[in-house]
Amino acid sequence: MTTASSTFEAVDDRYPTRLDPGFTASAEPLVRPDPTVWGTRPGPFLERELTAYDRNGFHIEQGLLTPTQVQHCWSEFDRMVTDPALADSGLLVRERGSGAIRSVFRVHRVSPVFEALARTPRILDRARQLLGSEVYIHQSRINAMPGMAGTGFYWHSDFETWHAEDGLPAPRTVSLSIALTDNFAFNGGLMLMPGAHRTFVPCIGSTPDGNFHQSLQEQRVGVPSEQVITELGYEFGIDQFTGAAGAGLFFDANSMHASGNNISPYPRANVFLVFNSVENTPRAPYGGVAPRPVHLAERDVTPLEPLDDSPFA
Amino acid sequence: MTTASSTFEAVDDRYPTRLDPGFTASAEPLVRPDPTVWGTRPGPFLERELTAYDRNGFHIEQGLLTPTQVQHCWSEFDRMVTDPALADSGLLVRERGSGAIRSVFRVHRVSPVFEALARTPRILDRARQLLGSEVYIHQSRINAMPGMAGTGFYWHSDFETWHAEDGLPAPRTVSLSIALTDNFAFNGGLMLMPGAHRTFVPCIGSTPDGNFHQSLQEQRVGVPSEQVITELGYEFGIDQFTGAAGAGLFFDANSMHASGNNISPYPRANVFLVFNSVENTPRAPYGGVAPRPVHLAERDVTPLEPLDDSPFA
Repeated sequence: MTTASSTFEAVDDRYPTRLDPGFTASAEPLVRPDPTVWGTRPGPFLERELTAYDRNGFHIEQGLLTPTQVQHCWSEFDRMVTDPALADSGLLVRERGSGAIRSVFRVHRVSPVFEALARTPRILDRARQLLGSEVYIHQSRINAMPGMAGTGFYWHSDFETWHAEDGLPAPRTVSLSIALTDNFAFNGGLMLMPGAHRTFVPCIGSTPDGNFHQSLQEQRVGVPSEQVITELGYEFGIDQFTGAAGAGLFFDANSMHASGNNISPYPRANVFLVFNSVENTPRAPYGGVAPRPVHLAERDVTPLEPLDDSPFA
Repeated sequence: MTTASSTFEAVDDRYPTRLDPGFTASAEPLVRPDPTVWGTRPGPFLERELTAYDRNGFHIEQGLLTPTQVQHCWSEFDRMVTDPALADSGLLVRERGSGAIRSVFRVHRVSPVFEALARTPRILDRARQLLGSEVYIHQSRINAMPGMAGTGFYWHSDFETWHAEDGLPAPRTVSLSIALTDNFAFNGGLMLMPGAHRTFVPCIGSTPDGNFHQSLQEQRVGVPSEQVITELGYEFGIDQFTGAAGAGLFFDANSMHASGNNISPYPRANVFLVFNSVENTPRAPYGGVAPRPVHLAERDVTPLEPLDDSPFA
């Protein structure tokens, strides 16, 4: 506990979190001191889209990928789950019962297809435009959630974890979730609170070492209180990311989001790419823990180069 | 097990269910031998609405109650949860943790307000029109699900239970769910498979005595297999009941429906009235068990009389 506190003081932490339960007075939500759209770099987003992103913290682009491009992702996913080179890589997460692959991590490094996706100019340039700089991938993965028994994820800000456990100084980071299946309102589609990305919610409780082993299943540290979620929910309302396969959701790292469970028979899968600014590279984690492994928090911050002949162009 | 089977044979059961696990071959879904709209009795539903109800198995009436009428229901609910006469009636279901009232049963008998609601001509006449006869209330309740932690309900047909455990011979029964809070797609709003009400899905497993004590929390008997749900889901698709407080959903007793959990901060509450035809009164339960208590399965089948000066007119 004291380790975490002194770390905060030492590095001039503007987003204090994982607070000592004894000091809950300091856990009041705070107004984010950083912008959402960084600078005025030109790019594919229209001016009104940037204004809306700044206000809401997210942007939905229907048809970001064509059906053929979605199929290309599926073929690569199918290849990866049977690739002997990946079998013991620690990058595959399997269902407990069936052994089916539920997630593949670090796809931007182990798959030329998903590397190409991240470097596709109309995608990469959107990330650069929002963050006002060159960017690299902080984390990437594919999630394939089955129907009938898909488990949701409680309300949280990704940035809160990336700050406390990975050392990202500021929310100069944008996530892109691309739907590989149709996203309905009822099959676990992401819920977001438009505008809540302007509020940083400190969380209570110090971070255990190796917290990520557990938090990928169910987050217990870095979780806002029900009272704060209720207040934010009534202040900002809730939107959902729905759309046909190929739809893309760009969302700010500090977006407050969650997903319900999925008892529909329709599975839900997506590619998830987290673009971070090269001017926001990780320091020592602010939660006073050892940095997470590179498949969760990339340490190679080489800027992504655009790939002009991308199959996703 | 054998008790149930011989009961089926004895009463010429056209909807066999709670089958012996050894005879799964007889558990194939069957085409419902009964109509959905019974007869041509005139009433408030338009011809095209009846046609759609016949095809889909449900009808959503936005604004069935006015905001004032919704408020009237809330006031009565508030009164009931503190009514000493109801405290030990067995009609109240409380949250385990907080002790808050989660459900009140048999509201058509213990509350003049909800009795009036059921007897309101524009509501009662819709039920009569669909069922082609006089009707009475088989079951009624109010559900008040909190936000953040509302638990969903897996796919099921109400008729399957009412047949096996209450002895209703046929699905000549219509449920009305009236939203007392805004129903969003993401706060546990009912999912329905339009058209699946024409398919009866026999379930496997005999019914334990007193099954209802457990099944109101989580249904374990009378649950269709995942395979059948998947097949129906892909054949019929899924719709959701959403709308502002006051919206009403009329749905056939054999509708295949479910609700997801609710991790939004928005609570969800509804009044639930089940109208049964007086020509479909209960017999001995087809599942070979003792009939459930009257707050779950009414045995007084006196037809409802219209109430012309209803506050819900």
